[in-house]
Amino acid sequence: MTDAGPDTASGAELFPIIFADLAEVEARLRRNVHSRLPVVPEVYLHTVHAGGKRVRPALALLCGRLAGAAGEATFDVAVAVELIHLASLIHDDVIDDGGRRRARLTANRVWGNKNAVLVADFTHAVAYRLLAQRCPMGVVARLSDTVVRMCEGELAQMFNEGSTEVSEPLYYEMIGDKTASLMAVAAELGALVSGGDEAPVAACRAYGQSLGVAFQIVDDLLDLTGDEERIGKPVGNDVRCGRLTLPLIHGLHAGGAGAERVRALITKPDVTLDDLAALRAALADTGSLAYTADAARRFADAACAELAGFPDEEPRQALEALAAYVVARTQ
Amino acid sequence: MTDAGPDTASGAELFPIIFADLAEVEARLRRNVHSRLPVVPEVYLHTVHAGGKRVRPALALLCGRLAGAAGEATFDVAVAVELIHLASLIHDDVIDDGGRRRARLTANRVWGNKNAVLVADFTHAVAYRLLAQRCPMGVVARLSDTVVRMCEGELAQMFNEGSTEVSEPLYYEMIGDKTASLMAVAAELGALVSGGDEAPVAACRAYGQSLGVAFQIVDDLLDLTGDEERIGKPVGNDVRCGRLTLPLIHGLHAGGAGAERVRALITKPDVTLDDLAALRAALADTGSLAYTADAARRFADAACAELAGFPDEEPRQALEALAAYVVARTQ
Repeated sequence: MTDAGPDTASGAELFPIIFADLAEVEARLRRNVHSRLPVVPEVYLHTVHAGGKRVRPALALLCGRLAGAAGEATFDVAVAVELIHLASLIHDDVIDDGGRRRARLTANRVWGNKNAVLVADFTHAVAYRLLAQRCPMGVVARLSDTVVRMCEGELAQMFNEGSTEVSEPLYYEMIGDKTASLMAVAAELGALVSGGDEAPVAACRAYGQSLGVAFQIVDDLLDLTGDEERIGKPVGNDVRCGRLTLPLIHGLHAGGAGAERVRALITKPDVTLDDLAALRAALADTGSLAYTADAARRFADAACAELAGFPDEEPRQALEALAAYVVARTQ
Repeated sequence: MTDAGPDTASGAELFPIIFADLAEVEARLRRNVHSRLPVVPEVYLHTVHAGGKRVRPALALLCGRLAGAAGEATFDVAVAVELIHLASLIHDDVIDDGGRRRARLTANRVWGNKNAVLVADFTHAVAYRLLAQRCPMGVVARLSDTVVRMCEGELAQMFNEGSTEVSEPLYYEMIGDKTASLMAVAAELGALVSGGDEAPVAACRAYGQSLGVAFQIVDDLLDLTGDEERIGKPVGNDVRCGRLTLPLIHGLHAGGAGAERVRALITKPDVTLDDLAALRAALADTGSLAYTADAARRFADAACAELAGFPDEEPRQALEALAAYVVARTQ
């Protein structure tokens, strides 16, 4: 366990108008989970400190300002969606012992699967407890619905590991569920509890959904092209897990020798760093990397188009900057 | 995956006045979890079909009738508390890969840890979604609070595995959190959403809490004295995991040669079936088995004492029968 703060500097730089609000979210995230058992804050804070840009709280806070007047309930939503995200990160790290492959090891490596599972359950429950205090009932219904979708997206991804038959529509369905649904609900509920009317709330939701899809496309691209030191995890993880992401799906369907090279590389039993470099080159040749980057840009543009009805002021500008950041990010 | 129904016959026999209601809960439990992904109903129904007496739904339904008029919201609570229970059973079975010991393997053995974790998360979320539809907001707050306590109880138990220093108060605190809290909230919320007033709701809650403690004491006793075929899982699991339960705590503090025999047997690196038989004999000699059975009876009596203010009619009689069953059960 480290006392180092999270890497939120660039998050706060990105959204200067909510700098103070994000600091408050950070304080509440740390304060919210207390327990007489030392392992709870240890596992939980290990994940909180791993940082992240707090994109989901930022979405709730900015959409709250965009569509209404952000208040205490907006903070509740901002903290709750990040708690759900953190819990899902802890659960993601549980080793698939009975399954086919090993995922990366983090919290569970240090504290064991069962501690990780229980602390994530604890974190989930704290999120619901927070929302049940002063938010309208529909908020809990929407969040629990979203957790159902997130689980389905993760399960679908696992179910399709090792398959080379994953299509673009299936890919979009899976990332829509596992990643975009939480960003959509962060934006939607942030706007809703801040007093937003139906149409602005729907626009915020649509913005969050498209932004989330763009975010995951870029994540999947960085897993192939990113710098390990910058993104803080091994690259090539998707390929090693047999997960078809957008660049790989495009490459497999590019036809000709390029597609054959891609297929040969991703179906190798062990994928070396040299194989990854060869795969990158093959996907550049088939135009798959450019195609993927372009797809991310289209979703980010679609996200921004949802903001057209809002005044061209700070909250909207910050959300546009967030969309630009999501496609330009290198970590 | 099997189509065989759960072992609810004796549950329904125990509570004839809610026979039809329990059948309805069973139908809703099966209907509630649907997904386009086959693994979700597979893992979930595997656990639903493993059966159980549906004690928690019975508590909600009976306390609903005792304190008010059971209706649709009572069914929501009855189903939701069982969903939380089923999710905790699935999570219990995740292998502690990084930890010290291996727990029994069930759903996770068949489908892998990650599928088990995600389906349990899914099941949790479905419980909250159900309650968020028509129950008052306080219900979600109480249930999420209970899940926090359940996680803390489980974590405390894991934390203390291998320790011979666990005291009776700590034991009661742990089983109060991990087991009794959900029975207490099932009784409390069943009464509350059925229109019960404050005092009857509090009495139901106190009944459920004491019943839950009695239930877990008997569970821990059966882990030593039960018949493997009847209880459907290996006996001696607590001893092998280094978990001090009430009979073991009493035996360790009985003094003299008896206590020494108990200590020697439970601290052996491998506990054979012969060791278990010797341990049972030692715990009989120290009076620890009788002490434990007596403690369970006292909590069951305390549970029934909470019902004194209610009319001596069918719902109260059924709850008294349930308390008698909990201490007399052999599986």
